[in-house]
Amino acid sequence: MKLNIAVLAGDGIGPEIVTQAQKVLDAIAAKYHHEIIYSPALVGATAIDQLGDPYPETTHEVCMNSDAVLFGAIGDPKFDNDPKAKVRPEQGLLAMRKKLGLYANIRPVATFPSLLDKSPLRLDIVEGADMVVVRELTGGIYFGEKGRSEDLKKAFDTCTYTTEEIERILKLAFSYAGKRDKRLTVVDKANVLATSRLWRETAQAMEPAYKDIEVDYMFVDNAAMQLIQWPKKFDVIVTENMFGDIISDEASVITGSLGLLPSASVGVHTSVFEPIHGSYPQAAGKDIANPVATVLSAAMLLESLDLLEEAQLVREAVNKSLEEGIVTEDINKEKPYKTSEVGDWLAKYI
Amino acid sequence: MKLNIAVLAGDGIGPEIVTQAQKVLDAIAAKYHHEIIYSPALVGATAIDQLGDPYPETTHEVCMNSDAVLFGAIGDPKFDNDPKAKVRPEQGLLAMRKKLGLYANIRPVATFPSLLDKSPLRLDIVEGADMVVVRELTGGIYFGEKGRSEDLKKAFDTCTYTTEEIERILKLAFSYAGKRDKRLTVVDKANVLATSRLWRETAQAMEPAYKDIEVDYMFVDNAAMQLIQWPKKFDVIVTENMFGDIISDEASVITGSLGLLPSASVGVHTSVFEPIHGSYPQAAGKDIANPVATVLSAAMLLESLDLLEEAQLVREAVNKSLEEGIVTEDINKEKPYKTSEVGDWLAKYI
Ligand SMILES: CC(C)[C@H](C(=O)O)[C@@H](O)C(=O)O
Ligand SMILES: CC(C)[C@H](C(=O)O)[C@@H](O)C(=O)O
Repeated sequence: MKLNIAVLAGDGIGPEIVTQAQKVLDAIAAKYHHEIIYSPALVGATAIDQLGDPYPETTHEVCMNSDAVLFGAIGDPKFDNDPKAKVRPEQGLLAMRKKLGLYANIRPVATFPSLLDKSPLRLDIVEGADMVVVRELTGGIYFGEKGRSEDLKKAFDTCTYTTEEIERILKLAFSYAGKRDKRLTVVDKANVLATSRLWRETAQAMEPAYKDIEVDYMFVDNAAMQLIQWPKKFDVIVTENMFGDIISDEASVITGSLGLLPSASVGVHTSVFEPIHGSYPQAAGKDIANPVATVLSAAMLLESLDLLEEAQLVREAVNKSLEEGIVTEDINKEKPYKTSEVGDWLAKYI
Repeated sequence: MKLNIAVLAGDGIGPEIVTQAQKVLDAIAAKYHHEIIYSPALVGATAIDQLGDPYPETTHEVCMNSDAVLFGAIGDPKFDNDPKAKVRPEQGLLAMRKKLGLYANIRPVATFPSLLDKSPLRLDIVEGADMVVVRELTGGIYFGEKGRSEDLKKAFDTCTYTTEEIERILKLAFSYAGKRDKRLTVVDKANVLATSRLWRETAQAMEPAYKDIEVDYMFVDNAAMQLIQWPKKFDVIVTENMFGDIISDEASVITGSLGLLPSASVGVHTSVFEPIHGSYPQAAGKDIANPVATVLSAAMLLESLDLLEEAQLVREAVNKSLEEGIVTEDINKEKPYKTSEVGDWLAKYI
C-alpha cells in the first residue's frame, strides 16, 4: 500500500516526537512492504514566525492531499504572555479543524499497569478503567457567532447545533461502542440548554437502530463527578464540543498516563492523529520528551487506513517497551532513556 | 438579634435534613439570645404537586421578606422519567436564582480527616486540600436567549455577560481570597470565547485594586485536570455559570465528603443556604440521611448575618460529632446514628 502522510510537527517538542513516530512507521512500512511518502508542512507558532499564519494555505493543501495527517503539538509561551498578539497558534488548530472538517475527536483512555502508581486516583478506583471519549469538534460554541457590543461592555457567544451534525457524530460513537463494550453515555445539559435537548432527542431517535447498544444520558456536571468516582463504569462517552473539551481532558488525567495518550480527529477530507499532551516548550530540543503518545497516534493512523495488524504490532512494541523499562525520564527518573533511544528501540522491535 | 428565616425544605430528604438544621439554629438562638422566626414555603416537586409551580409566587414573597433562606433539596424521579413533563423541579431552582438575584454560588470544599479514606484520590494528593469555588449564577448560557428553528432541526443557546455582572462576582471572589490564602484563580476559555475574554479583561483591570491577591488565569480544560492532579494548589476559584456548574461539582467529589458540603447563594435581595447534595429520594422518610451538609449551610447562614461566633460553634459541634463517630450510615455502616439523633446530638452539644 502507498501512504501519503502529511507531517505537521509544530512547536516545542513536536518535531522530536514526530520523528520517533516516523521511525516506527518506517519500520512498519519495511516489514509489511508499504510505501510511505511524507509531506512536511508548517503549523502553529513556527508557521506564524515564518508565514504569519498558524495554518497557512500551503499547509492546508498538503493536508487535503494526504491520506492522513501526523501532528505533533503547537503552542509557544511567547504568545501566552502577550495578550495583544493578533494571531495565536491555537487559531491554527481551530482553522485546521474547520477547514478539514474534523468533526470528531476520538480519545481512548486506558490505564497502563506500569503507570498506575502515577494516577492521582486510588488504585482500586482506577485500575481497569478503559474508555473512549468522542468529542464533537467543529460545531457548538466554538464556531458560533460571537462578539462584543459597541461600548465593549457586553460580550456574547452562540452555541448552535443541527440534527445532521449531531447524527454524524453519534453514528461514529455508536459504532465505537459496537466494537467495544456496547455501552454509550451521552453527556449533555438537557435540563438547561436547547442545544442539549436537541442532542438528547436525536440520540433517543437513533437508539432503535442500535438495539445492541445500551445508551444512557448524563448531565455534564454529573459526568464530571462520576469520571472521578467510578471511571470504570464508562465505555464510550459522546458529547458536544465545549463539554468534550473539559470532559476529555478530565478523563485523560485519571489514569496517570497523560503523556502516553493518543488521539484521532476524524475528518471529512482527511484525519489528523496527534498526542493529547502539549508542546512542552521547556523540554524542546533536549531529547527527553516521551514519544509514546505520538507513536500510539501513529497506530491509530494505521488503524484508520485499515492496517489493523500493523497498528496492533505498534501497540505491542509500546507495551513491551514499557514492560522492559525503555522509557523516558517522565516515567523513570533513575534510569531514563532518551526520546530518540525509545524511538530506535521501538523501530528495532518491529 | 431577630432573624427571619424562610424554610424551603423541598423534596426527598429535604424536610428531615432541614429539621436537623433548625434544631441546631434553635440551640444557637437559645444560647446567644436570638429570636428566630421560621417561615416555611413550598418549592420543587412538592410545589408542583400542590400549586403547579416549582417556585410559586407565595414562596417568592416569603423569601423576599426573609433575612436568609434555608433550603433543603429538590428533585423527584417521577419527573426524570417523564421527558414530556412541562414543569420540572429544576425550573423552580432557576426561577428562584433569577428572581432573588442569587448572582454568586459559594462552595467551600474542605477535607475532613475522618473522611479522607472515602476520597477517590490518593491520600497524598488530596490531604489538606481546602478551596472555595465561586460560581456566577444568574448569567451566561443558562439565562441567554435559546430556542429551536421552525423545522426543529437546529437549536441554539446564547451566552452573554456584561462588565457589571463580571465585576460584581469578581469583587466577591477577591474578598473571599483576601480572607483566605490570598490566591485567586480565574477559570475561563479566553482562547476561544468572547465572553471569556471579557471576563479576563475585567479581572485584569481589577487586579491593581487588590495588590495583596495573587491572581492567575486558567483555561477550564486545564482547571478540570489540575483539580484532580493538584487540588491543594487552589485557594479561591471564580468562574462563569456553566463552567462553574462543572468545576464546582468536580471539586466537590475529590475530598470524599460530598455529603457534608454546604453552599451559599448570595443574592441581591436575600441569600440561600443549602447542602450541595441532592434530594436522595431513595432515603426519604427513613431517618438515615446525613444532615451535616445542611447544618454546615446553616453555619454559613449565621456567618452571612455576621454571627461569627455562632457559626464557629456550629462548625465545632460538627467536627466533634465526626470525631466521636456520631454519624449516619453513609459514613459508618457498622454503627450508624439516625438523622434525627445526629441533629439532637449537635443541638445538645451547643
Ligand atoms: C487550544 C484550544 C483551542 C483547544 C480546544 O479548546 O479545543 C485545546 O484545548 C484542545 O482541546 O485541543
Ligand atoms: C439542576 C440544575 C439546573 C442545576 C444547575 O445546573 O445549575 C444544578 O446542577 C446545580 O448545580 O445547582
